[in-house]
Amino acid sequence: MSTGYTDKEAIAGIDAPLPEIECWPNQFKGYEIEIEIPEFTSVCPKTGLPDFGTVTIRYQPDQLCLELKALKTYLLAYRNLGIFYENVINRILKDVVAACNPVWAEVSGQFTPRGGISSRVKARYNQSSKE
Amino acid sequence: MSTGYTDKEAIAGIDAPLPEIECWPNQFKGYEIEIEIPEFTSVCPKTGLPDFGTVTIRYQPDQLCLELKALKTYLLAYRNLGIFYENVINRILKDVVAACNPVWAEVSGQFTPRGGISSRVKARYNQSSKE
Amino acid sequence: MSTGYTDKEAIAGIDAPLPEIECWPNQFKGYEIEIEIPEFTSVCPKTGLPDFGTVTIRYQPDQLCLELKALKTYLLAYRNLGIFYENVINRILKDVVAACNPVWAEVSGQFTPRGGISSRVKARYNQSSKE
Amino acid sequence: MSTGYTDKEAIAGIDAPLPEIECWPNQFKGYEIEIEIPEFTSVCPKTGLPDFGTVTIRYQPDQLCLELKALKTYLLAYRNLGIFYENVINRILKDVVAACNPVWAEVSGQFTPRGGISSRVKARYNQSSKE
Amino acid sequence: MSTGYTDKEAIAGIDAPLPEIECWPNQFKGYEIEIEIPEFTSVCPKTGLPDFGTVTIRYQPDQLCLELKALKTYLLAYRNLGIFYENVINRILKDVVAACNPVWAEVSGQFTPRGGISSRVKARYNQSSKE
Amino acid sequence: MSTGYTDKEAIAGIDAPLPEIECWPNQFKGYEIEIEIPEFTSVCPKTGLPDFGTVTIRYQPDQLCLELKALKTYLLAYRNLGIFYENVINRILKDVVAACNPVWAEVSGQFTPRGGISSRVKARYNQSSKE
Amino acid sequence: MSTGYTDKEAIAGIDAPLPEIECWPNQFKGYEIEIEIPEFTSVCPKTGLPDFGTVTIRYQPDQLCLELKALKTYLLAYRNLGIFYENVINRILKDVVAACNPVWAEVSGQFTPRGGISSRVKARYNQSSKE
Amino acid sequence: MSTGYTDKEAIAGIDAPLPEIECWPNQFKGYEIEIEIPEFTSVCPKTGLPDFGTVTIRYQPDQLCLELKALKTYLLAYRNLGIFYENVINRILKDVVAACNPVWAEVSGQFTPRGGISSRVKARYNQSSKE
Amino acid sequence: MSTGYTDKEAIAGIDAPLPEIECWPNQFKGYEIEIEIPEFTSVCPKTGLPDFGTVTIRYQPDQLCLELKALKTYLLAYRNLGIFYENVINRILKDVVAACNPVWAEVSGQFTPRGGISSRVKARYNQSSKE
Amino acid sequence: MSTGYTDKEAIAGIDAPLPEIECWPNQFKGYEIEIEIPEFTSVCPKTGLPDFGTVTIRYQPDQLCLELKALKTYLLAYRNLGIFYENVINRILKDVVAACNPVWAEVSGQFTPRGGISSRVKARYNQSSKE
Repeated sequence: MSTGYTDKEAIAGIDAPLPEIECWPNQFKGYEIEIEIPEFTSVCPKTGLPDFGTVTIRYQPDQLCLELKALKTYLLAYRNLGIFYENVINRILKDVVAACNPVWAEVSGQFTPRGGISSRVKARYNQSSKE
Repeated sequence: MSTGYTDKEAIAGIDAPLPEIECWPNQFKGYEIEIEIPEFTSVCPKTGLPDFGTVTIRYQPDQLCLELKALKTYLLAYRNLGIFYENVINRILKDVVAACNPVWAEVSGQFTPRGGISSRVKARYNQSSKE
Repeated sequence: MSTGYTDKEAIAGIDAPLPEIECWPNQFKGYEIEIEIPEFTSVCPKTGLPDFGTVTIRYQPDQLCLELKALKTYLLAYRNLGIFYENVINRILKDVVAACNPVWAEVSGQFTPRGGISSRVKARYNQSSKE
Repeated sequence: MSTGYTDKEAIAGIDAPLPEIECWPNQFKGYEIEIEIPEFTSVCPKTGLPDFGTVTIRYQPDQLCLELKALKTYLLAYRNLGIFYENVINRILKDVVAACNPVWAEVSGQFTPRGGISSRVKARYNQSSKE
Repeated sequence: MSTGYTDKEAIAGIDAPLPEIECWPNQFKGYEIEIEIPEFTSVCPKTGLPDFGTVTIRYQPDQLCLELKALKTYLLAYRNLGIFYENVINRILKDVVAACNPVWAEVSGQFTPRGGISSRVKARYNQSSKE
Repeated sequence: MSTGYTDKEAIAGIDAPLPEIECWPNQFKGYEIEIEIPEFTSVCPKTGLPDFGTVTIRYQPDQLCLELKALKTYLLAYRNLGIFYENVINRILKDVVAACNPVWAEVSGQFTPRGGISSRVKARYNQSSKE
Repeated sequence: MSTGYTDKEAIAGIDAPLPEIECWPNQFKGYEIEIEIPEFTSVCPKTGLPDFGTVTIRYQPDQLCLELKALKTYLLAYRNLGIFYENVINRILKDVVAACNPVWAEVSGQFTPRGGISSRVKARYNQSSKE
Repeated sequence: MSTGYTDKEAIAGIDAPLPEIECWPNQFKGYEIEIEIPEFTSVCPKTGLPDFGTVTIRYQPDQLCLELKALKTYLLAYRNLGIFYENVINRILKDVVAACNPVWAEVSGQFTPRGGISSRVKARYNQSSKE
Repeated sequence: MSTGYTDKEAIAGIDAPLPEIECWPNQFKGYEIEIEIPEFTSVCPKTGLPDFGTVTIRYQPDQLCLELKALKTYLLAYRNLGIFYENVINRILKDVVAACNPVWAEVSGQFTPRGGISSRVKARYNQSSKE
Repeated sequence: MSTGYTDKEAIAGIDAPLPEIECWPNQFKGYEIEIEIPEFTSVCPKTGLPDFGTVTIRYQPDQLCLELKALKTYLLAYRNLGIFYENVINRILKDVVAACNPVWAEVSGQFTPRGGISSRVKARYNQSSKE
């Protein structure tokens, strides 16, 4: 396999330190929350150019709900971070799950076109399929 | 867990007295009603600023149908009430179920952006899964 | 239960005489027809004010198809009839089923806002679940 | 049953001769094709007035694919043919199936309003449920 | 069967040499990627006229992700290639699967109207149903 | 000229008594008001069938503003009145001008299709060109 | 100039006999009427294939208004008439002016794509600039 | 003139004290700013029910620009103020002009339907026509 | 001035030979024609990558009308031609004017995004301002 | 005047060094170019939070055209620059005019909502009114 991405680029930003996602105690059971962030931006680790997109987080809270102000600060930290689209979405999912341990969660991103090509990435987590 | 919301804010408005949701005797069986209120507004208990959104109530009536004029009065009472989005939707569901005991009911809210982030909350009730 | 509707209002129009829904002999099996009437109007039995909405009829014909010209005359007869939304949809379903005995039928109505609140009502019939 | 349509009108156009639907040898397995014809027009056998609509054909090819140029000629032949909506859709399905013997096929038509009423008709065929 | 397409036209472009689709090592499990190319163009092998359409590739990566820059070069190579719509979509699917061996993949194309007729073609692959 | 309308039909409804359009004292100078009524309905004097449309009233108030509740009652009175589209719009303009004597006024109506044909009618008045 | 159209094609349909456009006596002064016909169809004199489009007629009536039912019959007569787009619009304008002698009139047509190219044609008449 | 509004209602809210609109020193000449507030709400002085609408402020700054945070606080103060639509727009214009003395300014409001009727109000100021 | 384009690139394609634009004799006076080509594509002379866009031609014919089939052939010839956006539009205008000598003509192009930037170019010719 | 902005904030970013806007020699006269950048982002000098918007540049070139690749680099430099909306648009206009000395130019920005309020700023330059 000849690839246009180096290994270093492929893992760029995956473990970079980011602000904490905070939570507040959930008061009800069995419902769903969807959060849309239409102004997400990060940096392509290969070209150094900015990427833009809409990130959507959906989850069913268990004991905790995501606090929106801290979530915003967390997402703003991607602004100057070099990381691929695909890794952005998977990392946000991992961090959301770690913060609020939801019944389930789903993160997706719709990224604006580059070279006439646009991308959507979607990842999902289920508490019950965790070991 | 460090949280940006105090416990008092997290439960604000959950038990505040609100006008009664009235009903009228249903005449048919096995159908579904959807009610959309695009002008819902309440107050954020943290910042004191107004929140805006569209609330949608769907349900299958059993013996009673929701009376729309009284429902409107009930919803207007949120106008100066401090309560979080997530709690608004869960409380409306609880109050609708208590008023008309439907076969099932679902309440959702699509709230307008704050800080570039918009939210949707959806909660559901089933008569048959009630003990 | 205190209700804003009298019993008389709750059943208004349910048994009013209306023009006959006519049919013609169906020539094929196992297909579906959807009819949309965006200019439906009736009268609120409580306020005397007109209601407006879009009524949609979907069904799988058995031996008979609904004749559209007669159906239009039938629906025009609601123009000065006092009857609630919820009852409009259930009555149309009952009359359609009586006229053409379909394999299944579904009637829904999307009514325009009153007091900032819009409604959708949907009712369904299955030949096989009829005794 | 008193009906506004004569028997002759009810079957008009069902067996009229039409141009052949041609095919070409399919090269792949297990995929789906959708063809949309937004400029379909035929004639109402009762009033003699033209009907207009969008016809959509979806199918999974088996050994043969529909040839689009011949299909267009076939559909143009409805231009001066007296035939009801419901029969148009069922006849196209029958002719498509006879021409290319697909794994499955579905034909639907969305017809423009007449007297404030618009119609959609949808019919479906499955190779496996054929005897 | 009389057909408007010759055998040569029916297989045109199916085996033409095209640039390699490159990949990079996937870092996460169990998520989905969708890539949209609204500027796809190829040539009709019968008329020599260009076809235009939007091609969409969806897949769940296994060990490898599609590299977008190489994918773009691969798709640009269809610009002067004579090949039918139906074959375009099936070939792209075959080449994508060969390049990155995904858990599943789906390729679809929405082609702009010719003679008042537009087409959509959709093909799908599942790793688990491969022998 | 052979015409499909009788003289009586051509003037139907032009002088029928209607509820009064009321006003309230305007507090400011030199601004513009636009009122949209998407649920207008009247009756065709020829066929007896209902017409539907959206009526829009724009005007610059002088001493008086139109009172919306009375305006609604006025417009509801067209519901069972036989009158042509063209005359509806001109009569509303005449009645609005008589009621509030505006600096200028414009009334337009967008009527839903009949026989595949939709209509828009627009009439205008200027205080300064009145003698 | 080498041209793809013969002289006979260029004037096809310009003088073909068509049904009369009828009128009724106008009751008001100084207003405007717009009529939209989204289901216009005629035939290309070169290829014999049908053309489709939306025709819009705007005019300020003088003594006479266009009668819509007769106008519809007039427009239906183009269904099997061979005539170019450009000539369709100019002929309709000429016939409308001859029928009702308006203060001004404008006819436009938006025709659906052929070979990836769509056309709009617009012609205008003013009573005052007529000699 | 019999009117449904009392004089007291007609002037309600026109002189109520509101928070100050603040400004900052403009740095450029000859350009235009448009500010849209889609979440405006006030109270009807007659019914006590809330009104909702979108308010738009356009102006050409002279020495001062409107400060958005203070403007928001100013507009939030209408939330529990009884005042008619028409007066809302004219008062905002008057207050904006007093605060920043622009070259010109225009304020408009699009208010959501009440009783099936929606309203738009637009007022305009020019520095040069001020004496 | 340091520029990213060479002189050779700046004039690329301006004088390349292209197929003739043919015409047919116009039959009417004083009207306007608009032709939209949503599938235009050419090649960037700098990068060699394809550009895509919608080209619109508007003109008032004098003695001649553009023949659409030849116009299509002319436009297809840009498919493999290296030429900048800005020059494409100006050259089409020049060639259209040379072919049919219109009273006036306007050509515009809306090109799809490259690097997150989209472009529109519009050029205009008037017969009367020609010397 | 009490203002929420300090003088330092009011002029922030107005004179910050930015990459050069490059040009290429224009080949035609009297036409117009519009460039849309939907992914513009800068930083609020007061809060330090990012602003997002769509910037549109329209101009009539004289001797020079804007080179798009360099323009993109210039605009990317606002990403971490603290500067108000109003100043962004005026500065881009000033820099564009300095770079290519156009016959006229217009720059506008549509910025996404903050606190429920969105802004549009538009500035314009004319060569002929320059001294």
